[in-house]
Amino acid sequence: MTETPALRGVLSPVVTPFTADLSPDIPRWIEHCRWLLSQDCGLAIFGTNSEANSLSAGEREEMLERLVAGGLPPERMMPGTGCCALTDSVRLTRHAVGLGCAGALMLPPFYYKGVSDEGLFRNFAEVIERVGDARLRIYLYHIPPVAQVPISLALIERLLKAYPTAVAGVKDSSGDWSNTRAMLDAFPGFGVFAGNELILLDTLRGGGVGCISATANVNPGPIHQLYEGWQGPEAERMQGEVNELRRFVQGFPMIPALKEIVAHYRHDPAWTPLRPPLVGLAAEERSALLAGLAERGFAMPGLDAARGAA
Amino acid sequence: MTETPALRGVLSPVVTPFTADLSPDIPRWIEHCRWLLSQDCGLAIFGTNSEANSLSAGEREEMLERLVAGGLPPERMMPGTGCCALTDSVRLTRHAVGLGCAGALMLPPFYYKGVSDEGLFRNFAEVIERVGDARLRIYLYHIPPVAQVPISLALIERLLKAYPTAVAGVKDSSGDWSNTRAMLDAFPGFGVFAGNELILLDTLRGGGVGCISATANVNPGPIHQLYEGWQGPEAERMQGEVNELRRFVQGFPMIPALKEIVAHYRHDPAWTPLRPPLVGLAAEERSALLAGLAERGFAMPGLDAARGAA
Repeated sequence: MTETPALRGVLSPVVTPFTADLSPDIPRWIEHCRWLLSQDCGLAIFGTNSEANSLSAGEREEMLERLVAGGLPPERMMPGTGCCALTDSVRLTRHAVGLGCAGALMLPPFYYKGVSDEGLFRNFAEVIERVGDARLRIYLYHIPPVAQVPISLALIERLLKAYPTAVAGVKDSSGDWSNTRAMLDAFPGFGVFAGNELILLDTLRGGGVGCISATANVNPGPIHQLYEGWQGPEAERMQGEVNELRRFVQGFPMIPALKEIVAHYRHDPAWTPLRPPLVGLAAEERSALLAGLAERGFAMPGLDAARGAA
Repeated sequence: MTETPALRGVLSPVVTPFTADLSPDIPRWIEHCRWLLSQDCGLAIFGTNSEANSLSAGEREEMLERLVAGGLPPERMMPGTGCCALTDSVRLTRHAVGLGCAGALMLPPFYYKGVSDEGLFRNFAEVIERVGDARLRIYLYHIPPVAQVPISLALIERLLKAYPTAVAGVKDSSGDWSNTRAMLDAFPGFGVFAGNELILLDTLRGGGVGCISATANVNPGPIHQLYEGWQGPEAERMQGEVNELRRFVQGFPMIPALKEIVAHYRHDPAWTPLRPPLVGLAAEERSALLAGLAERGFAMPGLDAARGAA
């Protein structure tokens, strides 16, 4: 049996640039992925903040193939593969495993509401059985504010009992520390990722493995430093600093704000298009966002250098 | 320009049978569609009660092609084509129009919550523009209890102004008569379908065009008689009768209940499988459902005859 190294650390749900006709802009996307890796940030491509649910299964497959063909390491990738349709989830999960991705981040099927844990168990069990690959590592994606369909502790317990190797961890985007705490306490050794960096220190102290955070798209370095230094004397200060930036950015609609930041610090306005139903920031929002970042001395290292040279 | 006759009357979100390995059971599905047509019921295939959101785009395409190839009339079809991903919505809508379907029932993109009417407008506008076919007739699907993303009156007004021909109507599954009433009042001549038969008479009196109802899968004849006789002396009695049955059936989880009813009255247990995350009725629920129908003298004409002959 092939042993897949467990994912740890800071990952970013990589934002997806679109061309003017709203096709995925794959070269720009790969360039951003390379920069994230240079900042010690793993690639949780096809997450909520990637607008992955606005992409077809075929688009996601083509993007992932191009990313791996571009030489980026699949052992640093955790693509989102959970869809409403069982057949789509199986297809994308099989594809990701086949390309050597270290993990797959799986939303529950999210159209039908009020579904039972039994039904959700069967969904994940069918995916695991149909993919049928010993390398598969699923990370359950708990994001009730968006998906509306939760991943309960009871469901995790049942899945872990049935598939102790394939069910490798969870991303908790509930925004509720008491829930993350309960996951950490209930399942020692399980790969619990915080859904953002605000609780990274608490998560690591509780035995978790890292965070998968939207703002890691733009602030990966300091979040990684916190991850590395969590047991050191500067941990609380570093947590405070990443939190201050996070709280400022999350005062804006997150996905358009991230794209505006990337566009600005790359000097590349082609980064801003979004697929409907998302829309861009209003001009005043954009100004306030960029002014606030400038006041904070915010930087995206490597991109700033290019900017200075321009 | 080809003129598409406007859809009217009673339509059923056709339940989708699955084989033991959870593939769409296309022959059984076509047989049920034929029976519905024999009961004067149109085919709103790929609706919520069709488990359409548990089917991939490719599965939906194959099913629709087989249905049309089977000789069933596309002018009686309103397939669901609204997906989370713009590219999937365009693909399925183009496919349905190409096969001559009279309408397309479009969910809003439903993953991201709290999106703006501007973003939803752009979604529908992109689909209409990209399909670019004068035959296209979109029916907007308002089902906030499930999709969580509503179709507001302001959005309808804006879409109608921009695309007065392509935007042909709405299905209101809010379960809120005051909302249906507001749609009828605001947009005279617009194709407003009630989301179930409980308010069919009120909807027709208010200028609406019919209903698209889960329970039309099993009780299409009486609902059609109400539609035909809405101005006659028996209308209130007929409304009361269909309501009594509807209220009984909706006391059970709807999709598994419909499949149990079809299975029972067809003497065909192969009708019951569901795709996860949905699960079947518990044994007690099933017994209570079938006993209640027997007490009411419930029948599925044409299928009962086959049963009596068996």
